[in-house]
Amino acid sequence: MPDTEPTPTPPIRVTVWHEFRHEKTNPRVAEVYPHGMHEAIAAGLRGKPGLSVATATLDEHEAGLTEERLGQTDVLTWWGHMAHSDVQDLVVERVYNRVVRQGMGLVVLHSGHFSKVFRKLMGTTCDLKWRVDPPSKETLWVTRPGHPIVQHVDDHLVLEQEEMYSEFFDVPEPESTFLISSFDGGEVFRSGMTWTRGAGKIAYLRPGHETYPTYHNPAIQQMIENAVRWAAPTLPTAPHTFGRRDLGWVGK
Amino acid sequence: MPDTEPTPTPPIRVTVWHEFRHEKTNPRVAEVYPHGMHEAIAAGLRGKPGLSVATATLDEHEAGLTEERLGQTDVLTWWGHMAHSDVQDLVVERVYNRVVRQGMGLVVLHSGHFSKVFRKLMGTTCDLKWRVDPPSKETLWVTRPGHPIVQHVDDHLVLEQEEMYSEFFDVPEPESTFLISSFDGGEVFRSGMTWTRGAGKIAYLRPGHETYPTYHNPAIQQMIENAVRWAAPTLPTAPHTFGRRDLGWVGK
Amino acid sequence: MPDTEPTPTPPIRVTVWHEFRHEKTNPRVAEVYPHGMHEAIAAGLRGKPGLSVATATLDEHEAGLTEERLGQTDVLTWWGHMAHSDVQDLVVERVYNRVVRQGMGLVVLHSGHFSKVFRKLMGTTCDLKWRVDPPSKETLWVTRPGHPIVQHVDDHLVLEQEEMYSEFFDVPEPESTFLISSFDGGEVFRSGMTWTRGAGKIAYLRPGHETYPTYHNPAIQQMIENAVRWAAPTLPTAPHTFGRRDLGWVGK
Amino acid sequence: MPDTEPTPTPPIRVTVWHEFRHEKTNPRVAEVYPHGMHEAIAAGLRGKPGLSVATATLDEHEAGLTEERLGQTDVLTWWGHMAHSDVQDLVVERVYNRVVRQGMGLVVLHSGHFSKVFRKLMGTTCDLKWRVDPPSKETLWVTRPGHPIVQHVDDHLVLEQEEMYSEFFDVPEPESTFLISSFDGGEVFRSGMTWTRGAGKIAYLRPGHETYPTYHNPAIQQMIENAVRWAAPTLPTAPHTFGRRDLGWVGK
Repeated sequence: MPDTEPTPTPPIRVTVWHEFRHEKTNPRVAEVYPHGMHEAIAAGLRGKPGLSVATATLDEHEAGLTEERLGQTDVLTWWGHMAHSDVQDLVVERVYNRVVRQGMGLVVLHSGHFSKVFRKLMGTTCDLKWRVDPPSKETLWVTRPGHPIVQHVDDHLVLEQEEMYSEFFDVPEPESTFLISSFDGGEVFRSGMTWTRGAGKIAYLRPGHETYPTYHNPAIQQMIENAVRWAAPTLPTAPHTFGRRDLGWVGK
Repeated sequence: MPDTEPTPTPPIRVTVWHEFRHEKTNPRVAEVYPHGMHEAIAAGLRGKPGLSVATATLDEHEAGLTEERLGQTDVLTWWGHMAHSDVQDLVVERVYNRVVRQGMGLVVLHSGHFSKVFRKLMGTTCDLKWRVDPPSKETLWVTRPGHPIVQHVDDHLVLEQEEMYSEFFDVPEPESTFLISSFDGGEVFRSGMTWTRGAGKIAYLRPGHETYPTYHNPAIQQMIENAVRWAAPTLPTAPHTFGRRDLGWVGK
Repeated sequence: MPDTEPTPTPPIRVTVWHEFRHEKTNPRVAEVYPHGMHEAIAAGLRGKPGLSVATATLDEHEAGLTEERLGQTDVLTWWGHMAHSDVQDLVVERVYNRVVRQGMGLVVLHSGHFSKVFRKLMGTTCDLKWRVDPPSKETLWVTRPGHPIVQHVDDHLVLEQEEMYSEFFDVPEPESTFLISSFDGGEVFRSGMTWTRGAGKIAYLRPGHETYPTYHNPAIQQMIENAVRWAAPTLPTAPHTFGRRDLGWVGK
Repeated sequence: MPDTEPTPTPPIRVTVWHEFRHEKTNPRVAEVYPHGMHEAIAAGLRGKPGLSVATATLDEHEAGLTEERLGQTDVLTWWGHMAHSDVQDLVVERVYNRVVRQGMGLVVLHSGHFSKVFRKLMGTTCDLKWRVDPPSKETLWVTRPGHPIVQHVDDHLVLEQEEMYSEFFDVPEPESTFLISSFDGGEVFRSGMTWTRGAGKIAYLRPGHETYPTYHNPAIQQMIENAVRWAAPTLPTAPHTFGRRDLGWVGK
């Protein structure tokens, strides 16, 4: 039995960022996600214990990612696809610094692999092979049982219809590979990986093409929730002290 | 503001394992740790929110690590030195399996680097260079700010008197190196590292020679508490399913 | 143009170790590998520039891995399956020490994943899922272009008939994952990975079930040759100096 | 004895890149390196078997790194300090692409940690703590015996006078940490690390402040030579094939 009652920890402040353009031009996407993909992703997080959820979209002022908004964000989820170049460099720098220097978690979803900020954090092209049509069955296999992001997930998971992504996926060797997918053509993809950059934790989760109801799938919602909890910073973050040191400051 | 009140999580069940031999033969150690080093380590954990703390020592039945005890342990801390070979292989296998198959966290302290179970989990000799006398000042530098185990620790930490350990420390490349120490002779040591083995998380923390009051130091106590929280399994642990699979079980 | 003519480097001394039991009891294996699997593997290495090739098998004295033999081995390849437990612990310790302390490379093939020495070096169970029948098509995808072990390999490779292995494969996070396979049932497997243990490099290559002609396949032969070159030690290996250091030996 | 005589491999084409500005304004640097630091670094490589050595400097056309020059470079070494911002983005992109897409090796020296291209490849700030005066003794410890870059290096190495660099050094977790330094103030620094980005290998080597004769030191020259050999691409580099795939191209 515990020596003391556990005390509640402060909520993790999540901002679900979404490009929110496909829904306005593609009736199929609007049908699958009538309130936008961000609302489907946010719906899987709202009401969960210890999470505080907001959304932000590209066509808001400064892509919705003002200094004030980021200052209140512990974990940012990111879905983008057709308009990566419309994200202002100012915003990219702001997100980057919030991750590296202040430990904000970043959960990058599906085609967000090609976002400016993910490429900047990875230091690679983040390119891959892909095929939209016909849709493919995707089988995701857990390659790190016990990893917090696959909590409550069985040893594999099947999505009946998804876009195919295939290796080589040009990212740095991950610190953990927790999911690998196969597709109808025999292709494979590292669908769940993690990295650290500065004080910040980064997770990539592959599934989520805009024409399929992937973000309504409870198992996918569960993994996004798990990823958010995993990526949350440990506060207060240890200070980054850089620059000149005077002799004798330490050790003598 | 959060959408819901955070709910308490179940306590982390910690077992502090200690060889408990030096105290019985070396008056200096008995003076520094009159109730045993395990009681000093446990004292830094008891009463902390969300932790439930027990101790176990080598001269108990099955080294205090019976199936029942391990079955109630989420994280095990390990200090041993003069009697590594007295730990029965049965116990080593039990601890090993609890880590790899069931996700128990393991926090290895100081001379525990040479314990049977740590060597078995690492797959290397775990050998190093060392010098007991004279004592050395040890300066520990944080090399991964934002890592949960260095929460509330400044960018470095000084221990006025410790035993010197020096590289090469023969362990596999860690997943994270969060502390590196320097010593009076200009030696260095990777003093805080992490690995994953199966479903289990493993942390190594260097400081803690038996003749110095290291485990009474609040900063060291803080890091051990942090390490215990970091190493705790995500429950329920995802199932390991191994063995033969029938065709058609999945994907077709 | 080079400043000087390149000078030849000494040959890499390879020992191809093989259990050599299946061939004696299973006519199908004897048909595919009439001289034993070791001779097929060795045939892919013999006559290649800079390689010196020998073989050793389980039923020789000390499993063919005497101190003299290992002392003349820079890289050891390992195939075993039905008789892992017949490899004497003395031999396991000898191979282990040659890898960790003297930098011998180890290339573990297919069912060698369950060998005593690989499990000892990994620190995990090395268990996995599998299905022998019916045979499966295996598609191996390169996940680290530019890695020396996939030199001269296209972006993927197909084996028409192989045994299926599936994740979770219980090994530590690798330093590099250079191949991932898919199988007919939608299963996936990390088929090419590397680790370092002490001074030694270790590679795992999945394909090679005893009833299929995998080791006659030129692309597989190429990868084994590549792996041998990659795993070769850099000689002279830097000294491991362990144990006590006197104060003032360095840095003052 | 080898089955065949080893055949010579083609030479590794090294380009030693240097900012070459300090020497023109600081008499102390001009005294230590009368022909420029690049000539001292190149002198340690010229005449070595299997290496072909060229130099390039910032004030040449396109920083000396034209498409033609890079097309003939297998490994690039990089020293810069006071003029990182004078390297044109065009050149940074060219070097980056040559590393990631074509496997050129990159050996980053000392204050090159703050170069545009290293920061772009790392995805972090690459910031650190530092102190120029007074000079510090630096003791470098080998933390991965058997790594090719420390071949012919003892278990440690002392430089009597160097600039102090201290952790936290903001780089991603390395694939290998092969050197850690200590300094007079008790500071520590990961002085030798490696990463992979796409098809390219990257090494960082800390020592080499412009006012000290570090690059005339045979042990440092040896390590730079080792690093060049380690970082050389395996040619031909496996193709990166990205983009759309038609169904049926593979696996069916």
